[in-house]
Amino acid sequence: MYNLPLCRDHFISFFHKRIRETIEKYKMFGLEDKVVVAVSGGKDSLALALALKDLGYSVIGYFLDLGIPEGSAFARETVIRFGEKFSIPVHVEELRSVFGYSLVQISEIMRRPACSFCGTLKRYYMNRFARSIEADVLCTGHTMFDEATVLFSNVLQWKEEYLFRQLPVLPEEQGLTKKAKPLAFITERETAIYCFFKGIDYLDLPCPLSSGAKSRRVKLRLLQLEEDSPGTINRFLKGFYSFKKKINFSSFNKEDIQPCRECGYPTTADRFCSVCRMKRKLSENVSRG
Amino acid sequence: MYNLPLCRDHFISFFHKRIRETIEKYKMFGLEDKVVVAVSGGKDSLALALALKDLGYSVIGYFLDLGIPEGSAFARETVIRFGEKFSIPVHVEELRSVFGYSLVQISEIMRRPACSFCGTLKRYYMNRFARSIEADVLCTGHTMFDEATVLFSNVLQWKEEYLFRQLPVLPEEQGLTKKAKPLAFITERETAIYCFFKGIDYLDLPCPLSSGAKSRRVKLRLLQLEEDSPGTINRFLKGFYSFKKKINFSSFNKEDIQPCRECGYPTTADRFCSVCRMKRKLSENVSRG
Repeated sequence: MYNLPLCRDHFISFFHKRIRETIEKYKMFGLEDKVVVAVSGGKDSLALALALKDLGYSVIGYFLDLGIPEGSAFARETVIRFGEKFSIPVHVEELRSVFGYSLVQISEIMRRPACSFCGTLKRYYMNRFARSIEADVLCTGHTMFDEATVLFSNVLQWKEEYLFRQLPVLPEEQGLTKKAKPLAFITERETAIYCFFKGIDYLDLPCPLSSGAKSRRVKLRLLQLEEDSPGTINRFLKGFYSFKKKINFSSFNKEDIQPCRECGYPTTADRFCSVCRMKRKLSENVSRG
Repeated sequence: MYNLPLCRDHFISFFHKRIRETIEKYKMFGLEDKVVVAVSGGKDSLALALALKDLGYSVIGYFLDLGIPEGSAFARETVIRFGEKFSIPVHVEELRSVFGYSLVQISEIMRRPACSFCGTLKRYYMNRFARSIEADVLCTGHTMFDEATVLFSNVLQWKEEYLFRQLPVLPEEQGLTKKAKPLAFITERETAIYCFFKGIDYLDLPCPLSSGAKSRRVKLRLLQLEEDSPGTINRFLKGFYSFKKKINFSSFNKEDIQPCRECGYPTTADRFCSVCRMKRKLSENVSRG
Protein backbone atom coordinates (compact mmCIF):
# COMPACT_ATOMS: atom_id res chain seq x y z
CA MET A 1 0.00 0.00 0.00
CA TYR A 2 2.77 2.39 0.89
CA ASN A 3 5.99 2.15 -1.03
CA LEU A 4 8.21 2.14 2.02
CA PRO A 5 11.35 0.04 1.99
CA LEU A 6 11.35 -1.47 5.50
CA CYS A 7 13.72 -3.85 7.24
CA ARG A 8 12.37 -7.09 8.68
CA ASP A 9 11.58 -5.78 12.16
CA HIS A 10 10.00 -2.57 10.98
CA PHE A 11 7.91 -4.41 8.42
CA ILE A 12 6.60 -6.79 11.06
CA SER A 13 5.76 -3.90 13.42
CA PHE A 14 3.99 -2.08 10.59
CA PHE A 15 2.02 -5.20 9.68
CA HIS A 16 1.00 -5.85 13.30
CA LYS A 17 0.09 -2.20 13.84
CA ARG A 18 -2.16 -2.06 10.79
CA ILE A 19 -4.00 -5.20 11.94
CA ARG A 20 -4.36 -3.96 15.52
CA GLU A 21 -5.72 -0.64 14.28
CA THR A 22 -8.28 -2.40 12.08
CA ILE A 23 -9.35 -4.64 14.98
CA GLU A 24 -9.77 -1.62 17.27
CA LYS A 25 -11.39 0.67 14.72
CA TYR A 26 -14.08 -1.87 13.88
CA LYS A 27 -14.39 -3.21 17.46
CA MET A 28 -13.67 -6.72 16.21
CA PHE A 29 -12.55 -8.37 19.46
CA GLY A 30 -10.42 -7.90 22.56
CA LEU A 31 -7.55 -9.68 24.30
CA GLU A 32 -9.96 -11.62 26.52
CA ASP A 33 -11.89 -13.07 23.55
CA LYS A 34 -11.64 -16.57 22.10
CA VAL A 35 -10.73 -16.09 18.42
CA VAL A 36 -11.14 -18.74 15.72
CA VAL A 37 -9.14 -18.20 12.51
CA ALA A 38 -10.28 -20.18 9.47
CA VAL A 39 -7.03 -21.36 7.86
CA SER A 40 -6.77 -22.75 4.35
CA GLY A 41 -3.03 -23.31 4.09
CA GLY A 42 -2.59 -20.17 1.96
CA LYS A 43 -0.48 -17.16 2.92
CA ASP A 44 -3.28 -14.83 4.01
CA SER A 45 -4.99 -16.94 6.64
CA LEU A 46 -1.70 -18.28 8.05
CA ALA A 47 -0.23 -14.77 8.26
CA LEU A 48 -3.38 -13.65 10.05
CA ALA A 49 -3.28 -16.48 12.58
CA LEU A 50 0.35 -15.81 13.49
CA ALA A 51 -0.04 -12.02 13.60
CA LEU A 52 -3.01 -12.33 15.95
CA LYS A 53 -1.06 -14.69 18.18
CA ASP A 54 1.92 -12.31 18.23
CA LEU A 55 -0.44 -9.46 19.11
CA GLY A 56 -1.48 -11.42 22.20
CA TYR A 57 -4.88 -12.75 21.17
CA SER A 58 -6.08 -16.30 22.00
CA VAL A 59 -6.09 -17.96 18.60
CA ILE A 60 -7.47 -21.34 17.55
CA GLY A 61 -7.07 -22.37 13.90
CA TYR A 62 -9.83 -24.22 12.06
CA PHE A 63 -9.20 -26.21 8.88
CA LEU A 64 -11.87 -28.00 6.85
CA ASP A 65 -10.46 -30.79 4.68
CA LEU A 66 -12.71 -30.72 1.62
CA GLY A 67 -11.23 -33.89 0.11
CA ILE A 68 -9.96 -32.27 -3.08
CA PRO A 69 -7.46 -34.55 -4.87
CA GLU A 70 -4.07 -32.89 -5.45
CA GLY A 71 -5.05 -30.13 -3.03
CA SER A 72 -6.56 -30.89 0.37
CA ALA A 73 -3.87 -33.28 1.57
CA PHE A 74 -1.09 -30.72 0.95
CA ALA A 75 -3.15 -27.98 2.54
CA ARG A 76 -3.85 -30.14 5.58
CA GLU A 77 -0.15 -30.98 6.07
CA THR A 78 0.73 -27.32 5.67
CA VAL A 79 -1.63 -26.10 8.38
CA ILE A 80 -0.65 -28.92 10.76
CA ARG A 81 3.05 -28.09 10.35
CA PHE A 82 2.24 -24.39 10.78
CA GLY A 83 0.37 -25.10 14.04
CA GLU A 84 3.26 -27.16 15.39
CA LYS A 85 5.94 -24.68 14.38
CA PHE A 86 4.20 -21.66 15.91
CA SER A 87 2.39 -23.41 18.79
CA ILE A 88 -1.04 -22.50 17.54
CA PRO A 89 -3.77 -25.11 18.12
CA VAL A 90 -5.40 -26.07 14.82
CA HIS A 91 -8.62 -28.06 14.72
CA VAL A 92 -8.91 -30.20 11.58
CA GLU A 93 -12.24 -31.51 10.33
CA GLU A 94 -12.95 -33.64 7.29
CA LEU A 95 -15.96 -32.73 5.18
CA ARG A 96 -16.48 -36.40 4.45
CA SER A 97 -16.76 -37.20 8.17
CA VAL A 98 -18.96 -34.30 9.18
CA PHE A 99 -21.11 -34.06 6.07
CA GLY A 100 -20.90 -37.61 4.67
CA TYR A 101 -19.43 -36.68 1.27
CA SER A 102 -16.29 -34.97 0.00
CA LEU A 103 -16.60 -31.91 -2.27
CA VAL A 104 -15.75 -33.97 -5.36
CA GLN A 105 -18.38 -36.56 -4.52
CA ILE A 106 -21.00 -33.85 -4.02
CA SER A 107 -20.08 -32.31 -7.34
CA GLU A 108 -20.32 -35.67 -9.11
CA ILE A 109 -23.63 -36.66 -7.56
CA MET A 110 -25.23 -33.24 -8.02
CA ARG A 111 -23.70 -32.77 -11.49
CA ARG A 112 -22.75 -29.19 -10.76
CA PRO A 113 -19.31 -27.56 -10.38
CA ALA A 114 -17.75 -27.97 -6.94
CA CYS A 115 -17.37 -24.17 -6.60
CA SER A 116 -21.13 -23.79 -6.27
CA PHE A 117 -21.11 -25.69 -2.95
CA CYS A 118 -17.68 -24.87 -1.55
CA GLY A 119 -18.33 -21.46 0.05
CA THR A 120 -21.63 -22.50 1.59
CA LEU A 121 -20.10 -25.59 3.20
CA LYS A 122 -17.01 -23.77 4.46
CA ARG A 123 -19.10 -21.00 6.05
CA TYR A 124 -21.43 -23.54 7.62
CA TYR A 125 -18.77 -25.75 9.19
CA MET A 126 -16.48 -22.97 10.35
CA ASN A 127 -19.44 -21.36 12.08
CA ARG A 128 -20.50 -24.67 13.57
CA PHE A 129 -17.01 -25.18 14.98
CA ALA A 130 -16.85 -21.63 16.37
CA ARG A 131 -20.19 -22.14 18.13
CA SER A 132 -19.21 -25.57 19.44
CA ILE A 133 -16.27 -24.10 21.36
CA GLU A 134 -18.22 -20.93 22.24
CA ALA A 135 -15.78 -18.70 20.41
CA ASP A 136 -16.41 -14.95 20.53
CA VAL A 137 -15.40 -14.28 16.95
CA LEU A 138 -14.58 -16.07 13.73
CA CYS A 139 -11.86 -14.49 11.57
CA THR A 140 -11.15 -15.07 7.90
CA GLY A 141 -8.04 -14.03 5.98
CA HIS A 142 -9.81 -11.89 3.38
CA THR A 143 -7.44 -9.16 2.22
CA MET A 144 -8.11 -5.74 0.78
CA PHE A 145 -8.05 -7.18 -2.73
CA ASP A 146 -10.53 -9.95 -1.82
CA GLU A 147 -12.86 -7.37 -0.32
CA ALA A 148 -12.47 -5.01 -3.27
CA THR A 149 -13.13 -7.83 -5.75
CA VAL A 150 -16.38 -8.80 -4.04
CA LEU A 151 -17.41 -5.16 -3.85
CA PHE A 152 -16.51 -4.57 -7.49
CA SER A 153 -18.52 -7.54 -8.60
CA ASN A 154 -21.54 -6.55 -6.47
CA VAL A 155 -21.37 -2.92 -7.59
CA LEU A 156 -21.36 -3.91 -11.26
CA GLN A 157 -24.77 -5.44 -10.58
CA TRP A 158 -25.80 -3.13 -7.71
CA LYS A 159 -26.64 -6.14 -5.53
CA GLU A 160 -28.02 -4.14 -2.65
CA GLU A 161 -28.51 -7.11 -0.32
CA TYR A 162 -24.79 -7.88 -0.52
CA LEU A 163 -23.65 -4.27 -0.62
CA PHE A 164 -25.16 -3.47 2.72
CA ARG A 165 -23.71 -6.58 4.34
CA GLN A 166 -20.17 -5.87 3.18
CA LEU A 167 -18.15 -4.62 6.14
CA PRO A 168 -14.89 -5.66 7.81
CA VAL A 169 -16.97 -6.92 10.74
CA LEU A 170 -20.42 -8.54 10.96
CA PRO A 171 -22.06 -8.70 14.39
CA GLU A 172 -23.28 -11.94 15.97
CA GLU A 173 -26.81 -12.80 14.88
CA GLN A 174 -29.17 -15.63 15.62
CA GLY A 175 -27.08 -18.77 15.24
CA LEU A 176 -24.07 -17.03 13.67
CA THR A 177 -20.85 -16.21 15.47
CA LYS A 178 -19.53 -12.67 14.98
CA LYS A 179 -17.31 -12.49 11.88
CA ALA A 180 -14.25 -10.32 11.34
CA LYS A 181 -11.72 -9.64 8.58
CA PRO A 182 -8.65 -8.10 10.26
CA LEU A 183 -6.73 -8.10 6.93
CA ALA A 184 -9.33 -5.86 5.25
CA PHE A 185 -6.68 -3.15 4.75
CA ILE A 186 -3.70 -5.41 4.09
CA THR A 187 -2.56 -6.36 0.60
CA GLU A 188 -1.59 -9.84 -0.56
CA ARG A 189 1.90 -8.59 -1.26
CA GLU A 190 2.15 -7.68 2.40
CA THR A 191 0.97 -11.07 3.66
CA ALA A 192 3.51 -12.72 1.36
CA ILE A 193 6.32 -10.57 2.78
CA TYR A 194 5.15 -11.25 6.33
CA CYS A 195 5.20 -15.01 5.67
CA PHE A 196 8.70 -14.70 4.24
CA PHE A 197 10.03 -12.73 7.23
CA LYS A 198 8.30 -15.01 9.74
CA GLY A 199 9.31 -18.26 8.06
CA ILE A 200 5.72 -19.38 7.38
CA ASP A 201 5.56 -22.12 4.73
CA TYR A 202 2.35 -21.83 2.82
CA LEU A 203 0.60 -23.45 -0.10
CA ASP A 204 0.83 -21.34 -3.24
CA LEU A 205 -1.39 -23.29 -5.63
CA PRO A 206 -4.70 -22.29 -7.13
CA CYS A 207 -7.54 -24.67 -6.28
CA PRO A 208 -7.34 -27.57 -8.78
CA LEU A 209 -11.15 -27.60 -9.07
CA SER A 210 -11.65 -23.90 -9.71
CA SER A 211 -12.01 -22.97 -13.31
CA GLY A 212 -13.73 -19.80 -12.03
CA ALA A 213 -13.21 -18.04 -15.35
CA LYS A 214 -15.85 -15.43 -14.65
CA SER A 215 -14.78 -14.25 -11.23
CA ARG A 216 -11.15 -14.39 -12.36
CA ARG A 217 -11.98 -11.98 -15.18
CA VAL A 218 -13.55 -9.47 -12.78
CA LYS A 219 -10.45 -9.79 -10.59
CA LEU A 220 -8.20 -9.25 -13.57
CA ARG A 221 -10.04 -6.07 -14.62
CA LEU A 222 -9.77 -4.68 -11.11
CA LEU A 223 -6.05 -5.45 -11.04
CA GLN A 224 -5.67 -3.71 -14.42
CA LEU A 225 -7.44 -0.64 -13.06
CA GLU A 226 -4.99 -0.68 -10.14
CA GLU A 227 -2.07 -0.90 -12.56
CA ASP A 228 -3.52 1.92 -14.69
CA SER A 229 -3.75 4.12 -11.62
CA PRO A 230 -2.06 2.80 -8.46
CA GLY A 231 -4.16 3.33 -5.34
CA THR A 232 -7.45 2.63 -7.14
CA ILE A 233 -8.31 -0.43 -5.02
CA ASN A 234 -7.57 1.34 -1.76
CA ARG A 235 -9.64 4.40 -2.73
CA PHE A 236 -12.46 2.22 -4.03
CA LEU A 237 -12.76 0.17 -0.84
CA LYS A 238 -12.25 2.95 1.70
CA GLY A 239 -14.47 5.29 -0.27
CA PHE A 240 -17.21 2.68 -0.13
CA TYR A 241 -16.98 2.29 3.63
CA SER A 242 -17.41 6.02 4.14
CA PHE A 243 -20.16 6.23 1.52
CA LYS A 244 -21.96 3.40 3.27
CA LYS A 245 -21.95 5.14 6.62
CA LYS A 246 -24.06 7.91 5.12
CA ILE A 247 -26.64 5.64 3.56
CA ASN A 248 -29.86 4.80 5.27
CA PHE A 249 -30.37 1.18 4.33
CA SER A 250 -33.74 0.87 6.02
CA SER A 251 -35.55 1.29 2.71
CA PHE A 252 -33.79 -1.76 1.26
CA ASN A 253 -35.38 -5.17 1.29
CA LYS A 254 -34.14 -7.39 4.04
CA GLU A 255 -34.88 -11.06 3.89
CA ASP A 256 -36.53 -12.84 6.77
CA ILE A 257 -34.20 -15.20 8.57
CA GLN A 258 -35.24 -18.14 10.70
CA PRO A 259 -33.46 -21.16 12.18
CA CYS A 260 -33.27 -24.35 10.11
CA ARG A 261 -35.69 -26.95 11.55
CA GLU A 262 -33.01 -29.61 11.28
CA CYS A 263 -29.81 -27.98 12.58
CA GLY A 264 -30.75 -24.49 13.79
CA TYR A 265 -28.47 -22.67 11.31
CA PRO A 266 -30.08 -19.40 10.15
CA THR A 267 -31.72 -19.58 6.75
CA THR A 268 -33.89 -17.45 4.47
CA ALA A 269 -35.56 -20.62 3.18
CA ASP A 270 -38.86 -21.85 4.47
CA ARG A 271 -37.82 -24.84 6.58
CA PHE A 272 -34.31 -26.18 6.06
CA CYS A 273 -30.97 -24.46 5.52
CA SER A 274 -29.05 -24.97 2.28
CA VAL A 275 -26.64 -27.50 3.83
CA CYS A 276 -29.44 -29.67 5.22
CA ARG A 277 -31.28 -29.45 1.89
CA MET A 278 -28.08 -30.45 0.11
CA LYS A 279 -27.74 -33.46 2.42
CA ARG A 280 -31.30 -34.56 1.66
CA LYS A 281 -30.85 -34.21 -2.08
CA LEU A 282 -27.61 -36.17 -1.96
CA SER A 283 -29.12 -39.07 -0.07
CA GLU A 284 -32.10 -39.12 -2.45
CA ASN A 285 -29.80 -39.14 -5.46
CA VAL A 286 -27.60 -41.84 -3.95
CA SER A 287 -30.52 -44.10 -3.01
CA ARG A 288 -32.00 -43.63 -6.48
CA GLY A 289 -28.58 -44.76 -7.70
CA MET B 1 -28.64 -4.02 -26.53
CA TYR B 2 -30.89 -6.65 -27.99
CA ASN B 3 -29.49 -8.87 -30.66
CA LEU B 4 -32.39 -8.49 -33.03
CA PRO B 5 -31.75 -8.40 -36.74
CA LEU B 6 -34.09 -5.63 -37.93
CA CYS B 7 -34.76 -4.15 -41.32
CA ARG B 8 -34.35 -0.42 -41.87
CA ASP B 9 -37.90 0.62 -41.01
CA HIS B 10 -38.20 -1.59 -37.97
CA PHE B 11 -34.84 -0.44 -36.67
CA ILE B 12 -35.85 3.20 -37.00
CA SER B 13 -39.17 2.55 -35.21
CA PHE B 14 -37.36 0.68 -32.45
CA PHE B 15 -34.84 3.53 -32.08
CA HIS B 16 -37.57 6.18 -31.94
CA LYS B 17 -39.65 4.15 -29.53
CA ARG B 18 -36.78 3.67 -27.09
CA ILE B 19 -36.08 7.40 -27.11
CA ARG B 20 -39.73 8.35 -26.69
CA GLU B 21 -40.06 5.93 -23.77
CA THR B 22 -37.00 7.42 -22.07
CA ILE B 23 -38.34 10.95 -22.57
CA GLU B 24 -41.70 9.98 -21.10
CA LYS B 25 -40.38 7.83 -18.28
CA TYR B 26 -38.09 10.60 -17.00
CA LYS B 27 -40.55 13.42 -17.82
CA MET B 28 -37.89 15.11 -19.93
CA PHE B 29 -40.09 17.33 -22.13
CA GLY B 30 -43.26 17.45 -24.16
CA LEU B 31 -44.29 18.25 -27.73
CA GLU B 32 -45.02 21.87 -26.82
CA ASP B 33 -41.51 22.49 -25.44
CA LYS B 34 -38.61 24.28 -27.11
CA VAL B 35 -35.75 21.76 -27.18
CA VAL B 36 -32.09 22.67 -27.72
CA VAL B 37 -29.80 19.82 -28.78
CA ALA B 38 -26.08 20.40 -28.32
CA VAL B 39 -24.51 19.00 -31.50
CA SER B 40 -20.82 18.24 -31.93
CA GLY B 41 -20.79 16.78 -35.43
CA GLY B 42 -20.47 13.25 -34.07
CA LYS B 43 -22.98 10.45 -34.63
CA ASP B 44 -24.69 10.51 -31.22
CA SER B 45 -25.78 14.14 -31.07
CA LEU B 46 -26.79 14.25 -34.76
CA ALA B 47 -28.81 11.05 -34.43
CA LEU B 48 -30.50 12.53 -31.37
CA ALA B 49 -31.39 15.81 -33.12
CA LEU B 50 -32.96 14.01 -36.09
CA ALA B 51 -34.78 11.42 -33.99
CA LEU B 52 -36.32 14.18 -31.86
CA LYS B 53 -37.39 16.08 -34.96
CA ASP B 54 -38.91 12.91 -36.44
CA LEU B 55 -40.74 12.30 -33.17
CA GLY B 56 -42.37 15.71 -33.59
CA TYR B 57 -40.44 17.81 -31.09
CA SER B 58 -39.35 21.41 -31.83
CA VAL B 59 -35.59 21.06 -32.14
CA ILE B 60 -32.91 23.74 -32.40
CA GLY B 61 -29.30 22.61 -32.74
CA TYR B 62 -26.48 24.42 -30.97
CA PHE B 63 -22.85 24.10 -32.02
CA LEU B 64 -19.90 25.75 -30.26
CA ASP B 65 -16.87 26.16 -32.52
CA LEU B 66 -13.96 25.72 -30.11
CA GLY B 67 -11.32 26.68 -32.66
CA ILE B 68 -9.45 23.38 -32.60
CA PRO B 69 -7.14 23.05 -35.62
CA GLU B 70 -7.84 19.96 -37.75
CA GLY B 71 -11.12 19.51 -35.91
CA SER B 72 -13.55 22.37 -35.38
CA ALA B 73 -13.78 23.45 -39.04
CA PHE B 74 -14.79 19.93 -40.18
CA ALA B 75 -17.23 19.61 -37.30
CA ARG B 76 -18.77 22.97 -38.11
CA GLU B 77 -19.25 22.09 -41.79
CA THR B 78 -20.74 18.75 -40.80
CA VAL B 79 -23.38 20.24 -38.52
CA ILE B 80 -24.24 23.00 -41.01
CA ARG B 81 -24.73 20.44 -43.80
CA PHE B 82 -26.76 18.27 -41.42
CA GLY B 83 -29.04 21.21 -40.54
CA GLU B 84 -29.59 22.02 -44.22
CA LYS B 85 -30.20 18.42 -45.24
CA PHE B 86 -32.75 17.71 -42.51
CA SER B 87 -34.23 21.22 -42.14
CA ILE B 88 -33.14 21.56 -38.54
CA PRO B 89 -32.08 25.07 -37.47
CA VAL B 90 -28.54 25.02 -36.05
CA HIS B 91 -27.14 27.97 -34.15
CA VAL B 92 -23.36 28.23 -34.50
CA GLU B 93 -21.24 30.20 -32.04
CA GLU B 94 -17.51 30.68 -32.00
CA LEU B 95 -15.74 30.40 -28.66
CA ARG B 96 -13.31 33.05 -29.85
CA SER B 97 -16.12 35.54 -30.46
CA VAL B 98 -18.11 34.89 -27.30
CA PHE B 99 -15.24 34.26 -24.89
CA GLY B 100 -12.39 36.15 -26.55
CA TYR B 101 -10.04 33.17 -26.98
CA SER B 102 -10.12 29.80 -28.74
CA LEU B 103 -9.54 26.62 -26.74
CA VAL B 104 -5.99 26.29 -28.04
CA GLN B 105 -5.17 29.87 -27.07
CA ILE B 106 -6.56 29.31 -23.57
CA SER B 107 -4.50 26.17 -23.20
CA GLU B 108 -1.33 27.95 -24.34
CA ILE B 109 -1.81 30.98 -22.11
CA MET B 110 -2.85 28.95 -19.05
CA ARG B 111 -0.23 26.26 -19.72
CA ARG B 112 -2.67 23.48 -18.98
CA PRO B 113 -4.20 20.83 -21.27
CA ALA B 114 -7.20 22.03 -23.30
CA CYS B 115 -9.34 19.18 -21.90
CA SER B 116 -9.33 20.79 -18.47
CA PHE B 117 -11.33 23.77 -19.82
CA CYS B 118 -13.36 22.19 -22.60
CA GLY B 119 -16.27 20.71 -20.65
CA THR B 120 -16.72 23.78 -18.46
CA LEU B 121 -16.85 26.11 -21.46
CA LYS B 122 -19.19 23.90 -23.46
CA ARG B 123 -21.63 23.53 -20.56
CA TYR B 124 -21.52 27.28 -19.92
CA TYR B 125 -22.17 28.42 -23.49
CA MET B 126 -24.76 25.80 -24.32
CA ASN B 127 -26.69 26.80 -21.22
CA ARG B 128 -26.29 30.49 -22.05
CA PHE B 129 -27.70 29.89 -25.51
CA ALA B 130 -30.61 27.82 -24.18
CA ARG B 131 -31.48 30.59 -21.74
CA SER B 132 -31.12 33.31 -24.36
CA ILE B 133 -33.85 31.73 -26.49
CA GLU B 134 -35.88 30.70 -23.43
CA ALA B 135 -35.63 27.02 -24.27
CA ASP B 136 -37.42 24.58 -21.99
CA VAL B 137 -34.76 21.93 -22.08
CA LEU B 138 -31.20 21.35 -23.20
CA CYS B 139 -30.39 17.87 -24.55
CA THR B 140 -27.01 16.25 -24.97
CA GLY B 141 -26.21 13.12 -26.95
CA HIS B 142 -24.74 11.12 -24.06
CA THR B 143 -25.31 7.41 -24.71
CA MET B 144 -25.59 4.51 -22.32
CA PHE B 145 -21.86 3.90 -22.60
CA ASP B 146 -21.04 7.56 -21.84
CA GLU B 147 -23.27 7.44 -18.79
CA ALA B 148 -21.86 4.11 -17.65
CA THR B 149 -18.30 5.36 -18.07
CA VAL B 150 -18.92 8.42 -15.92
CA LEU B 151 -20.69 6.28 -13.33
CA PHE B 152 -17.90 3.70 -13.36
CA SER B 153 -15.27 6.36 -12.85
CA ASN B 154 -17.24 8.03 -10.03
CA VAL B 155 -17.99 4.73 -8.33
CA LEU B 156 -14.33 3.73 -8.33
CA GLN B 157 -13.79 6.79 -6.16
CA TRP B 158 -17.26 6.92 -4.55
CA LYS B 159 -17.61 10.56 -5.50
CA GLU B 160 -20.90 11.07 -3.75
CA GLU B 161 -21.47 14.62 -5.01
CA TYR B 162 -21.39 13.34 -8.59
CA LEU B 163 -23.15 10.07 -7.88
CA PHE B 164 -26.24 11.75 -6.62
CA ARG B 165 -26.38 14.16 -9.54
CA GLN B 166 -26.13 11.41 -12.17
CA LEU B 167 -29.54 10.90 -13.74
CA PRO B 168 -30.92 10.94 -17.30
CA VAL B 169 -32.61 14.25 -16.44
CA LEU B 170 -31.62 17.17 -14.22
CA PRO B 171 -34.33 19.67 -13.31
CA GLU B 172 -34.03 23.39 -13.97
CA GLU B 173 -32.25 25.19 -11.15
CA GLN B 174 -31.30 28.76 -10.48
CA GLY B 175 -29.71 29.93 -13.74
CA LEU B 176 -29.55 26.50 -15.35
CA THR B 177 -31.90 25.23 -18.03
CA LYS B 178 -33.29 21.72 -17.45
CA LYS B 179 -30.95 19.08 -18.91
CA ALA B 180 -31.87 15.78 -20.50
CA LYS B 181 -30.11 12.78 -22.03
CA PRO B 182 -32.66 10.98 -24.21
CA LEU B 183 -29.98 8.50 -25.43
CA ALA B 184 -29.27 7.27 -21.90
CA PHE B 185 -30.44 3.76 -22.86
CA ILE B 186 -29.16 3.73 -26.44
CA THR B 187 -25.81 2.25 -27.43
CA GLU B 188 -23.28 3.84 -29.77
CA ARG B 189 -23.67 0.95 -32.15
CA GLU B 190 -27.33 1.86 -32.40
CA THR B 191 -26.70 5.55 -33.12
CA ALA B 192 -24.21 4.51 -35.82
CA ILE B 193 -26.81 2.24 -37.46
CA TYR B 194 -29.44 4.97 -37.21
CA CYS B 195 -27.10 7.45 -38.93
CA PHE B 196 -26.43 4.90 -41.65
CA PHE B 197 -30.12 4.22 -42.29
CA LYS B 198 -31.03 7.90 -42.16
CA GLY B 199 -28.13 9.07 -44.34
CA ILE B 200 -26.59 11.28 -41.66
CA ASP B 201 -22.98 12.16 -42.45
CA TYR B 202 -21.04 12.55 -39.26
CA LEU B 203 -17.51 13.21 -38.13
CA ASP B 204 -15.81 10.06 -36.92
CA LEU B 205 -12.53 11.44 -35.59
CA PRO B 206 -11.28 11.52 -32.02
CA CYS B 207 -10.58 15.04 -30.77
CA PRO B 208 -7.04 15.91 -31.97
CA LEU B 209 -6.28 17.62 -28.63
CA SER B 210 -7.40 14.80 -26.36
CA SER B 211 -4.64 12.54 -25.20
CA GLY B 212 -7.01 11.64 -22.31
CA ALA B 213 -5.04 8.51 -21.54
CA LYS B 214 -6.56 8.13 -18.08
CA SER B 215 -10.24 8.35 -18.94
CA ARG B 216 -9.65 6.20 -22.01
CA ARG B 217 -8.24 3.46 -19.79
CA VAL B 218 -11.31 3.49 -17.56
CA LYS B 219 -13.47 3.28 -20.70
CA LEU B 220 -11.39 0.42 -22.02
CA ARG B 221 -11.75 -1.56 -18.79
CA LEU B 222 -15.51 -1.09 -18.83
CA LEU B 223 -15.66 -2.25 -22.45
CA GLN B 224 -13.59 -5.31 -21.53
CA LEU B 225 -16.01 -6.12 -18.70
CA GLU B 226 -18.83 -5.89 -21.25
CA GLU B 227 -16.96 -8.24 -23.59
CA ASP B 228 -16.27 -10.66 -20.71
CA SER B 229 -19.96 -10.74 -19.88
CA PRO B 230 -22.30 -9.08 -22.39
CA GLY B 231 -25.02 -7.02 -20.71
CA THR B 232 -22.71 -5.78 -17.93
CA ILE B 233 -22.99 -2.10 -18.91
CA ASN B 234 -26.78 -2.23 -19.15
CA ARG B 235 -27.12 -4.00 -15.77
CA PHE B 236 -24.61 -1.64 -14.17
CA LEU B 237 -26.39 1.53 -15.29
CA LYS B 238 -29.98 0.40 -14.77
CA GLY B 239 -29.10 -1.24 -11.46
CA PHE B 240 -27.65 2.07 -10.32
CA TYR B 241 -30.79 4.02 -11.19
CA SER B 242 -32.95 1.68 -9.13
CA PHE B 243 -30.42 1.58 -6.28
CA LYS B 244 -30.36 5.37 -6.25
CA LYS B 245 -34.10 5.63 -5.88
CA LYS B 246 -33.87 3.86 -2.56
CA ILE B 247 -31.10 6.03 -1.15
CA ASN B 248 -31.81 8.96 1.05
CA PHE B 249 -29.21 11.47 -0.05
CA SER B 250 -30.12 14.08 2.55
CA SER B 251 -27.18 13.07 4.74
CA PHE B 252 -24.73 13.84 1.92
CA ASN B 253 -22.96 17.15 1.70
CA LYS B 254 -24.47 19.50 -0.77
CA GLU B 255 -22.53 22.52 -1.84
CA ASP B 256 -23.99 25.99 -1.60
CA ILE B 257 -24.74 27.47 -4.97
CA GLN B 258 -25.11 31.16 -5.72
CA PRO B 259 -25.19 33.28 -8.88
CA CYS B 260 -21.89 34.59 -10.26
CA ARG B 261 -21.64 38.34 -9.54
CA GLU B 262 -20.47 38.96 -13.09
CA CYS B 263 -22.76 36.88 -15.31
CA GLY B 264 -25.35 35.26 -13.02
CA TYR B 265 -24.31 31.67 -13.83
CA PRO B 266 -24.64 29.44 -10.75
CA THR B 267 -21.38 28.74 -8.95
CA THR B 268 -20.16 27.11 -5.76
CA ALA B 269 -17.31 29.64 -5.62
CA ASP B 270 -17.44 32.71 -3.44
CA ARG B 271 -18.03 35.42 -6.04
CA PHE B 272 -17.37 34.56 -9.68
CA CYS B 273 -18.12 31.44 -11.72
CA SER B 274 -15.29 29.42 -13.21
CA VAL B 275 -15.74 30.90 -16.70
CA CYS B 276 -15.58 34.51 -15.45
CA ARG B 277 -12.56 33.65 -13.30
CA MET B 278 -10.91 32.05 -16.34
CA LYS B 279 -11.55 35.21 -18.34
CA ARG B 280 -9.94 37.36 -15.65
CA LYS B 281 -6.90 35.12 -15.38
CA LEU B 282 -6.46 35.11 -19.14
CA SER B 283 -6.54 38.90 -19.42
CA GLU B 284 -4.08 39.20 -16.51
CA ASN B 285 -1.72 36.72 -18.17
CA VAL B 286 -2.03 38.42 -21.53
CA SER B 287 -1.44 41.92 -20.15
CA ARG B 288 1.60 40.63 -18.18
CA GLY B 289 2.80 39.30 -21.53
